Amino acid sequence: MKVVTFGEIMLRLKSPGQERLFQSPRLEATFGGSEANVAVALARLGLPAAYATPLPDNQIGRECLRELRYHGVDVSPIVFKPGRMGIYFFENGANQRPSNVIYDRAGSTIAEIEPGDIDWAAAFAGAGWFHISGITPAISQKAADASLAAAKAAAEAGLTVSFDLNFRAKLWKYGVKAQDMMSRIAAYADVLIGNEEDYQKSLGIEGPKGASEGSIDREGYAAMCARALAKFPKAKYAAVTLRESHSADSNDWSAMLASREEAIVSRRYSIADIVDRVGAGDSFSAGLIYGLIAYGEPRKALEYAVALSCLKHSISGDFALVEPGEAEKLMGGDASGRVQR
Amino acid sequence: MKVVTFGEIMLRLKSPGQERLFQSPRLEATFGGSEANVAVALARLGLPAAYATPLPDNQIGRECLRELRYHGVDVSPIVFKPGRMGIYFFENGANQRPSNVIYDRAGSTIAEIEPGDIDWAAAFAGAGWFHISGITPAISQKAADASLAAAKAAAEAGLTVSFDLNFRAKLWKYGVKAQDMMSRIAAYADVLIGNEEDYQKSLGIEGPKGASEGSIDREGYAAMCARALAKFPKAKYAAVTLRESHSADSNDWSAMLASREEAIVSRRYSIADIVDRVGAGDSFSAGLIYGLIAYGEPRKALEYAVALSCLKHSISGDFALVEPGEAEKLMGGDASGRVQR
Amino acid sequence: MKVVTFGEIMLRLKSPGQERLFQSPRLEATFGGSEANVAVALARLGLPAAYATPLPDNQIGRECLRELRYHGVDVSPIVFKPGRMGIYFFENGANQRPSNVIYDRAGSTIAEIEPGDIDWAAAFAGAGWFHISGITPAISQKAADASLAAAKAAAEAGLTVSFDLNFRAKLWKYGVKAQDMMSRIAAYADVLIGNEEDYQKSLGIEGPKGASEGSIDREGYAAMCARALAKFPKAKYAAVTLRESHSADSNDWSAMLASREEAIVSRRYSIADIVDRVGAGDSFSAGLIYGLIAYGEPRKALEYAVALSCLKHSISGDFALVEPGEAEKLMGGDASGRVQR
Amino acid sequence: MKVVTFGEIMLRLKSPGQERLFQSPRLEATFGGSEANVAVALARLGLPAAYATPLPDNQIGRECLRELRYHGVDVSPIVFKPGRMGIYFFENGANQRPSNVIYDRAGSTIAEIEPGDIDWAAAFAGAGWFHISGITPAISQKAADASLAAAKAAAEAGLTVSFDLNFRAKLWKYGVKAQDMMSRIAAYADVLIGNEEDYQKSLGIEGPKGASEGSIDREGYAAMCARALAKFPKAKYAAVTLRESHSADSNDWSAMLASREEAIVSRRYSIADIVDRVGAGDSFSAGLIYGLIAYGEPRKALEYAVALSCLKHSISGDFALVEPGEAEKLMGGDASGRVQR
Amino acid sequence: MKVVTFGEIMLRLKSPGQERLFQSPRLEATFGGSEANVAVALARLGLPAAYATPLPDNQIGRECLRELRYHGVDVSPIVFKPGRMGIYFFENGANQRPSNVIYDRAGSTIAEIEPGDIDWAAAFAGAGWFHISGITPAISQKAADASLAAAKAAAEAGLTVSFDLNFRAKLWKYGVKAQDMMSRIAAYADVLIGNEEDYQKSLGIEGPKGASEGSIDREGYAAMCARALAKFPKAKYAAVTLRESHSADSNDWSAMLASREEAIVSRRYSIADIVDRVGAGDSFSAGLIYGLIAYGEPRKALEYAVALSCLKHSISGDFALVEPGEAEKLMGGDASGRVQR
Amino acid sequence: MKVVTFGEIMLRLKSPGQERLFQSPRLEATFGGSEANVAVALARLGLPAAYATPLPDNQIGRECLRELRYHGVDVSPIVFKPGRMGIYFFENGANQRPSNVIYDRAGSTIAEIEPGDIDWAAAFAGAGWFHISGITPAISQKAADASLAAAKAAAEAGLTVSFDLNFRAKLWKYGVKAQDMMSRIAAYADVLIGNEEDYQKSLGIEGPKGASEGSIDREGYAAMCARALAKFPKAKYAAVTLRESHSADSNDWSAMLASREEAIVSRRYSIADIVDRVGAGDSFSAGLIYGLIAYGEPRKALEYAVALSCLKHSISGDFALVEPGEAEKLMGGDASGRVQR
Repeated sequence: MKVVTFGEIMLRLKSPGQERLFQSPRLEATFGGSEANVAVALARLGLPAAYATPLPDNQIGRECLRELRYHGVDVSPIVFKPGRMGIYFFENGANQRPSNVIYDRAGSTIAEIEPGDIDWAAAFAGAGWFHISGITPAISQKAADASLAAAKAAAEAGLTVSFDLNFRAKLWKYGVKAQDMMSRIAAYADVLIGNEEDYQKSLGIEGPKGASEGSIDREGYAAMCARALAKFPKAKYAAVTLRESHSADSNDWSAMLASREEAIVSRRYSIADIVDRVGAGDSFSAGLIYGLIAYGEPRKALEYAVALSCLKHSISGDFALVEPGEAEKLMGGDASGRVQR
Repeated sequence: MKVVTFGEIMLRLKSPGQERLFQSPRLEATFGGSEANVAVALARLGLPAAYATPLPDNQIGRECLRELRYHGVDVSPIVFKPGRMGIYFFENGANQRPSNVIYDRAGSTIAEIEPGDIDWAAAFAGAGWFHISGITPAISQKAADASLAAAKAAAEAGLTVSFDLNFRAKLWKYGVKAQDMMSRIAAYADVLIGNEEDYQKSLGIEGPKGASEGSIDREGYAAMCARALAKFPKAKYAAVTLRESHSADSNDWSAMLASREEAIVSRRYSIADIVDRVGAGDSFSAGLIYGLIAYGEPRKALEYAVALSCLKHSISGDFALVEPGEAEKLMGGDASGRVQR
Repeated sequence: MKVVTFGEIMLRLKSPGQERLFQSPRLEATFGGSEANVAVALARLGLPAAYATPLPDNQIGRECLRELRYHGVDVSPIVFKPGRMGIYFFENGANQRPSNVIYDRAGSTIAEIEPGDIDWAAAFAGAGWFHISGITPAISQKAADASLAAAKAAAEAGLTVSFDLNFRAKLWKYGVKAQDMMSRIAAYADVLIGNEEDYQKSLGIEGPKGASEGSIDREGYAAMCARALAKFPKAKYAAVTLRESHSADSNDWSAMLASREEAIVSRRYSIADIVDRVGAGDSFSAGLIYGLIAYGEPRKALEYAVALSCLKHSISGDFALVEPGEAEKLMGGDASGRVQR
Repeated sequence: MKVVTFGEIMLRLKSPGQERLFQSPRLEATFGGSEANVAVALARLGLPAAYATPLPDNQIGRECLRELRYHGVDVSPIVFKPGRMGIYFFENGANQRPSNVIYDRAGSTIAEIEPGDIDWAAAFAGAGWFHISGITPAISQKAADASLAAAKAAAEAGLTVSFDLNFRAKLWKYGVKAQDMMSRIAAYADVLIGNEEDYQKSLGIEGPKGASEGSIDREGYAAMCARALAKFPKAKYAAVTLRESHSADSNDWSAMLASREEAIVSRRYSIADIVDRVGAGDSFSAGLIYGLIAYGEPRKALEYAVALSCLKHSISGDFALVEPGEAEKLMGGDASGRVQR
Repeated sequence: MKVVTFGEIMLRLKSPGQERLFQSPRLEATFGGSEANVAVALARLGLPAAYATPLPDNQIGRECLRELRYHGVDVSPIVFKPGRMGIYFFENGANQRPSNVIYDRAGSTIAEIEPGDIDWAAAFAGAGWFHISGITPAISQKAADASLAAAKAAAEAGLTVSFDLNFRAKLWKYGVKAQDMMSRIAAYADVLIGNEEDYQKSLGIEGPKGASEGSIDREGYAAMCARALAKFPKAKYAAVTLRESHSADSNDWSAMLASREEAIVSRRYSIADIVDRVGAGDSFSAGLIYGLIAYGEPRKALEYAVALSCLKHSISGDFALVEPGEAEKLMGGDASGRVQR
Repeated sequence: MKVVTFGEIMLRLKSPGQERLFQSPRLEATFGGSEANVAVALARLGLPAAYATPLPDNQIGRECLRELRYHGVDVSPIVFKPGRMGIYFFENGANQRPSNVIYDRAGSTIAEIEPGDIDWAAAFAGAGWFHISGITPAISQKAADASLAAAKAAAEAGLTVSFDLNFRAKLWKYGVKAQDMMSRIAAYADVLIGNEEDYQKSLGIEGPKGASEGSIDREGYAAMCARALAKFPKAKYAAVTLRESHSADSNDWSAMLASREEAIVSRRYSIADIVDRVGAGDSFSAGLIYGLIAYGEPRKALEYAVALSCLKHSISGDFALVEPGEAEKLMGGDASGRVQR
């Protein structure tokens, strides 16, 4: 089943290893963005995956397209237009020092997207699934309008719609209330994805009472999901990622997937030497889409999503550079990390 | 004598060695901008040099200030304000393949500079020289207004004013004619600096007839300088850099300095393995300022300026990382490149 | 017009910069092979270009496919089969020290190719041009049989066939005489490409009398081309690359293109700081194919081919990382290497 | 309040990552030394901080000065004289393999310092605090004499004096007993800083009975501090750093601060993936100085010092590359290491 | 006592840090192979150690010899012959992502070794110990024949023979049953070394019942060793390495050494931030050989072997880059990882 | 014939590529010293070559020994003693910017060498040639005494003695006149090597009249050689290297070899893209020794020496990383730099 995603992609400039930004005069230059990350992960796993976005018509935009094509993403929905690409500078944390991000995304081509820039009819031809995140509508009125129009068009074309809430407090500056816009998009979604804060800040869904960093209140999360499914009648699933952050290097990672019938909780992975956690949520979304398509049942889909995103924590860059079979192996119980030879 | 410069500075992101941009996922991150380059060169040569600019109030702006301070620049005139720093991406050419630049400078703090952002009275206290280039007024109306105001204030405060014309065809998009604005600034200048194209496009001064790449028409250039000095009565000197570009690696480099009395031509250097020619013009300006201050007479000043900027071609980055004595040695005739041991 | 190429591709492992192999414990890992280099160059220039080869079914083969896809090559004719990928180790020369290559290509998937591995009917669907080189038939009987079968099938399907002779003395070890096999393939070719040694050793065509490194005997080369066209009646063009090698860094580069009517000689480029000359011949082939398709007349095609391959000398790696417009600009006369800004 | 520090600075040459020295032919070249580390940390936190030392009058000494200026240190007390800069080679440990240091500091300019090299009157003008460590007096008789003279001059000028004992068994080879010289300097100190071994070996203060690696005997440490304060009547505070070393990567880190009234113990941080622990003690000193000046009360000062030095463990190099606000945030309880975006 | 080892060595090509293979276009190029790793470790510890193998007669083979000579290995038994060197590509795992190896060893000089290639009489002159592993006989019939002949010659020459079983399921493709060939070699061994799987798959010795990853069944392992010693009457010792693999980064590491009188178990090391575990088993073999020679008694020999191989986990590359005294220090109880200064 | 050399070796710390020292925080760490360079070159060419020096007994000294052993040098005459290794910092020039060296060699083990440190009887056993340079006697009285003693012992043992004058003006600070000490050593030499300045400043031999940079006065040089041979009756040959330095990148390189019968001049090589010229003179000495031993006649020996040292200019580092056959090929006339494949 072909999956289409739409949203912002940025040039990612990271200091080497665990250096602070500009500690030495070198940066690692890759690309990343929530919905592109999903498309890349799916394409690498073997699903047909297309990605739609307006890229700037310069050497940076062309390189971005090449990079997506490298991973096997169908880049035919991408359009080029004058403008710039958003940039984010990233330094990796360690221990008690958190990772840090500087955004330089003002005036990007996605912020200036116009109706008609993307040919949705062409993009959705032959597709069965559409994925979007809450970052793109947070960027500008135009990006929000495009997100909403895309979700609507996808739903009308009969595609399954997944929506990763991805609340970003630093965005939403253009004069619209996050909950208003996000609720309008969520109304088209079949699958909602987020953490507790996302549900609360994006959709106004109250979280578990007394929940705190480091403890998982299963009943509370199930109740939160039930509230979300109640508020958005089209949605079949509400997924919640459960990150327990002990330090910049050491997190526990699991998730819940709730339908109207049941709320299941995944295996929990203890990840003690995180290589890069940016994009882990996106790889969860990709894994959930892949799992629901490939396995057709929620438990396996959830375990696949958590295993895939667990592996992402061990991979540098936004993209989940995972080969087919790797997440299945981890999901099957082999987490010993023994050399494969 | 303390020299003050004012203008744009950008984050410079260069692909390693002679790689094409993004050929491998690494970039070298330094800083550069015409007037900052002048301040850095002067500070490294031992002159008190201050630099004024509005920097963005984030980790990138703070790093830029640290980098300038590293070279010994007096950073007290710098102010921090919300916004972004302009960026330029750079790949170094080789042979018949030219170097290439992608600018991403829209919306930078310098483009949004407001009257009063820089405290000119404080900046000019104790100073004897002010330097500015034609890039900053080309960016935006606000940047042009600030440039003009700064030149006027400097002249009124009795500082010698040097003006590197630095015409950039891709800029000047904000609705003002380059020649109008540039002529208003040039009216305050004691020293005009540029190549033939700069004089023509920035100030409307006609160049040598029939001049072409690869030949130096001494009479023609002298006449051009005379026209410039005639048009701008305050100016004492008109300097012209003479680059003969054989390939991306191989250039000949010399210059002319004309007063109302005479037009002198410097020694010519054949530079066959250029390391980085960006910033070479700025190091010529720095060398001319240094030379006029240190030697007090045009011939030595001109030879110093050409020697310093010749050395810059052998140094990677925008900045002329030259120690006191190095240009003097080259100027003195030792161009053999023998190991110093 | 869609172009299809077929042949060997290898993992290329190069020591950094101008280091000798293993001087430091690092290697640069890219991919390259004569016909793949042609496909990559054409795809980057905007022509639809497909590449056919059997790749090993492991992480290295999959990476190679991704790399080709990155450049825009249509990889649908590629098949995966058990085996290994050939490797070549490369150190870049300097001055009087020549570049050096160590081949480790025994037992590769291309050497073990079987009839039917490539689906030629599918590969040639919609295509108008087929390109092959003399390296692949030199590897093994199976690779030679596949090359011959492909050329025959292409000719029968009405495609224009170009054949880069590319004689390699170290190959041709499997028991067939080079001239026998090469002549059988050349019989299907519309365009023959090679240097003097290639014509002589691959096809038995005598070269110019008294020709020596460093001088170009125009009449002699024209006569050689005439002999080649006489021997292979299907051929419309015989092209000869003319390299004058002064040192590892400094070569002059030009070419001749002969039809049955005339023999034209291109502009000559002096390349004094070669970055990487491996793959330059392949970029000439790509440029000639592109030029003949785009311009439809030999002079412009030849000048395009020489300009493109001149630029390749300034780019590290086997692939001609050239953007549309760059060779046109050089061909138009701008070889000054001035910064593009 | 302006802080002045004085002491040795060395060129630090480190093998990359966790490589053994010379495992590959690359070294990372930075600078570091106990008192310079304190000055850099304070300057980066926004306090006026000056550093006094004699540097060698060559390109290495000038680079060292630039590096200090980069971080904002007031370098006006630095003098240049003939000689060399001490060097230390460093390889980072991992797990059970300890980090390793090779010193090459004989004959350095600091070892040959003469009375009058530093103009203390000028250095102390406008200053309120002086900091020194026990490394400098351990180097040579001249360095010890200079340390003592500086401490005395500071005390007489009314500056608060802090003294980091920093015992180094491999030094003290020049014929003076460590305890004799250290006690003479300590007599001028208002704040004493060290670990248990420092107090014992530098000042002859007995440590906690039965104390062993891996357990913290609060009463015993308090008694040790009381003995120190009793022996040195000018001292107001005795601080003890408490490192529990589980492996080269994993340490627990806390500290005690004792006045004549009370002995308080800080929060304990578990640091499981140490990036670089060299300079951590110096960042504790810097944090304590900053905290006592900024907060004016011991508990907050201690927590600040421990938080700052905890962060240092996650930063490569001698210097605590910490921005204002980062230690405050950790001190405030947020040690989760979540991405800042 | 001079130790001789014999076997395969390969070019090892590793992606940098924890990158996936080809994530960036760089590889680290070193060498490694089980028996070469033993020789290198022993030579670095100061024992005379010679290594015998047929190397390819090209720049790669010569570099390999130089690298072995660098570490102090006596390379006089090495011979050069036409052919290629086997290669293995390696990516380091992290957390739940296992390390991964791609072998490209077909057709190597060791696989094509002929009787008489190595002059065993010369190699064994003056030697007291011979070491071999189960990898070499698994490669080809010729390599197995050479292994068996070497073990027989060593035993007949009165050398102590140690045999690291090193079962590799992916090898043993040439038509001989592993247990048959391995048992014939084991019959000459004085010391058998392996993990539980090695004993079972190589020699048909049943392992501990119900043993599972993560628990150490001391009685069961002792019984397994007893069965091995019973089956191979010449053997004096059976050693078992005990790895408990929690993740790619975190392993516990210990070992058992059984004689006919007793089975002793070593101290257990918890290694939480593994740098590179490839070659750890080989460094255990080296440590055991060194320990038995240097200490002459099993307990110290075992503790030395475990300490040396514990340190290897913290060192990148196949080789145990350990200096004399380092393993002794760890074995003596100092595992705190404190900086050595 | 076994060749023995004796002298200083230093740690060489070079900034990457053509960066200025400390332009980025990285240094390349290798080793080099005039007589060690000769031994390495000879060992790589296949001659038995031993090197004698006192190394510091630390990790740096041991690494240096390993590096020499890597190249095949017989390190048995090396002794370890307390002390430090000299260091030189190096930045590579470009164009008009000369290469630059900072020495940090005070107090090194070679400066403190004592009579008896080297066992000359053992070192000279089986040897036929001894080589020394003028750098070592310039370091200290002890180093000069050792040099003189070694030359005397070699001559008395019947070895051929070659002496590379290598005048260094910055050394010779310990109170002895260079000409006095150098003449005493030269009295033992069979072969004298140097450039014009060396002969003049080291031995007081007047150079060609009116000779200047950039012109070769063949008669004048022959006369200079005749004067040298007249002054030192034991000498059979006087060799002069002839460098014409056009820039840091571009030199012409040739040499003269004079006996009492004739003075022959070599082919001249134009080297336009110098990679590293440090050690070129040493590789000339090595080539001359190799040539005289291998060819037994002066013309071939001289051409070999010039070809080998011409190649050295294209290799980074002090050592001539040249394989047997490479210089022969260049000497044979193939200087075209064509790819070897």
